[in-house]
Amino acid sequence: MIDKSARPGEFQIIERFFRPLATDPGAFALTDDAALYRPRAGEELVLTSDMVVEGVHFLATETDASSIAKKALRVNLSDLAAKGAEPFGYLLSLALPAEWRAPWVKKFADGLAEDQERYGVTLLGGDLSRASGGATISITALGRVPRGRMVMRSGARPGDLVFVTGTIGDSALGLAWRDTRGLRAKAVKLLWGRYLRPEPRVELAAVLRRYATSAIDVSDGLVGDLGHICDVSGVAAEIEAEAIPLSDAARTFLRSDPSAFALILNGGDDYEILATVQAKSADRFHRAAEAAGVAVTRIGRVLKGEGPPVVRDAKGRPIDVPAASYTHF
Amino acid sequence: MIDKSARPGEFQIIERFFRPLATDPGAFALTDDAALYRPRAGEELVLTSDMVVEGVHFLATETDASSIAKKALRVNLSDLAAKGAEPFGYLLSLALPAEWRAPWVKKFADGLAEDQERYGVTLLGGDLSRASGGATISITALGRVPRGRMVMRSGARPGDLVFVTGTIGDSALGLAWRDTRGLRAKAVKLLWGRYLRPEPRVELAAVLRRYATSAIDVSDGLVGDLGHICDVSGVAAEIEAEAIPLSDAARTFLRSDPSAFALILNGGDDYEILATVQAKSADRFHRAAEAAGVAVTRIGRVLKGEGPPVVRDAKGRPIDVPAASYTHF
Repeated sequence: MIDKSARPGEFQIIERFFRPLATDPGAFALTDDAALYRPRAGEELVLTSDMVVEGVHFLATETDASSIAKKALRVNLSDLAAKGAEPFGYLLSLALPAEWRAPWVKKFADGLAEDQERYGVTLLGGDLSRASGGATISITALGRVPRGRMVMRSGARPGDLVFVTGTIGDSALGLAWRDTRGLRAKAVKLLWGRYLRPEPRVELAAVLRRYATSAIDVSDGLVGDLGHICDVSGVAAEIEAEAIPLSDAARTFLRSDPSAFALILNGGDDYEILATVQAKSADRFHRAAEAAGVAVTRIGRVLKGEGPPVVRDAKGRPIDVPAASYTHF
Repeated sequence: MIDKSARPGEFQIIERFFRPLATDPGAFALTDDAALYRPRAGEELVLTSDMVVEGVHFLATETDASSIAKKALRVNLSDLAAKGAEPFGYLLSLALPAEWRAPWVKKFADGLAEDQERYGVTLLGGDLSRASGGATISITALGRVPRGRMVMRSGARPGDLVFVTGTIGDSALGLAWRDTRGLRAKAVKLLWGRYLRPEPRVELAAVLRRYATSAIDVSDGLVGDLGHICDVSGVAAEIEAEAIPLSDAARTFLRSDPSAFALILNGGDDYEILATVQAKSADRFHRAAEAAGVAVTRIGRVLKGEGPPVVRDAKGRPIDVPAASYTHF
């Protein structure tokens, strides 16, 4: 009944597709129950888990396996980057739907292999199971920071300036535009590509450790994620709407539908980094980020007080921010 | 449309049900993107990931949320125990089905809380998502070993004796019996309970570090898991069928259906520990295990050669072992 060449068993899948990814000696070529990690002197470990689920985070019919694998890994690397951590490894739990096929798994593993090369991480271990429904990928990623140097959400202080990397809103606009207009236009493809293939700001980690008083990656939405920092730091903040860095494609979208600005503020899935920096360090932060190859833009400042961040227009008037940040429920 | 009291949002679920589990300072009460771990001098970390999936590993209609949570955690703790590691923390990725309800999540978290107390571990971080289909739980557990002391699969040598903890086959027999005869008989309930609530042999970790040349937890099946050790160690092995420790309930089952012996050999889900020990250390291993409160039984020995383990009857004749160990595919 089962075409064995197209559907190898559990051990064969691991051996054929995933063992080549487990190059660290502590992964024992995936032949043991667990991975071993020997910490270096003076380092601390930063650990994060993120899950990517078919039908929730992607549709199998429109997303290739390589992109799914990369997104699952990158959302984790983005969390580590925001903490100032240098990533080095990950564990993968993969649940495959009943109708899985070997070529899909091969593409999935190929995507991981490309990103392992790109970001300097290796597969340390994991689990493989049949899924209940669609494919489900859970990754736990590990990074390291020098002792005491993890960047927290809790360090923002009144007077700090608020920065973001890259451009904001592309991902959410890409998703919305694709749903309403399809993927023909070049601008939509570009925006949709940012949704599919986020680029974690791994190269900014050391700069954040040096200059950021707090940081978070923008996954729930710009305003919501700044709100998380404010909550935990016990401060308030304001954002200048005009200062938010937008891509040309996002500007094109906005011209045709100004109401889409809400998506820029709340859409999420940007995987850019939002950081607060002392005003006196702002110039040095800016230059260090530039030297690391990451554009950063000042978009606001940290204030005394509490409550959600206020977004102001060019005349300083508060803009009504329609909804809270994205949640899965 | 949504009853908010019964279905709180993502942040509320985390705050209400999971934050109380995150008692380690490095978990930051789940308010940050990642957890921080400061390694102790001279220790190494052991990491493992295991997934538990509705419809694959359990049926939501017959398994309460507390048992599901405990099983998901315990299968990971079992892997750590087999490596001689002392568990201390875990990350949890939880995908909830569309029809989830707060009381289910509360029971799930309560189950974790009980096991955190029992096994001395805490929640370090994780992710919460909607599921594609049924609930999916992925846990990455962390343990520590003194430097160089992790117990591998690869250390078995010809002449070593093969031991197992507890009794073997209960879980698989419980599953089979429940499916054919229901859960009324006391013996079935007992066996089924072993399937639902495995007991990881955490208390054996230090004894394994001291005496075991190799170890694995019996999750795929006794013969299959000993085969994994043989593969990686480059040895062969034999098991004396008569020596395999069985519970009274399992003996009752076997009397009514002798063919069920195959389930004992290959059924899996025992979460007992299979270890090889040098013959000269066997007595000391036995006593040390007893002192730790874990019954161990010698069931066979390691031989020169290769290939799957041979199971022999009381007269030394090889028994035909019907199938390879359990795989999900």
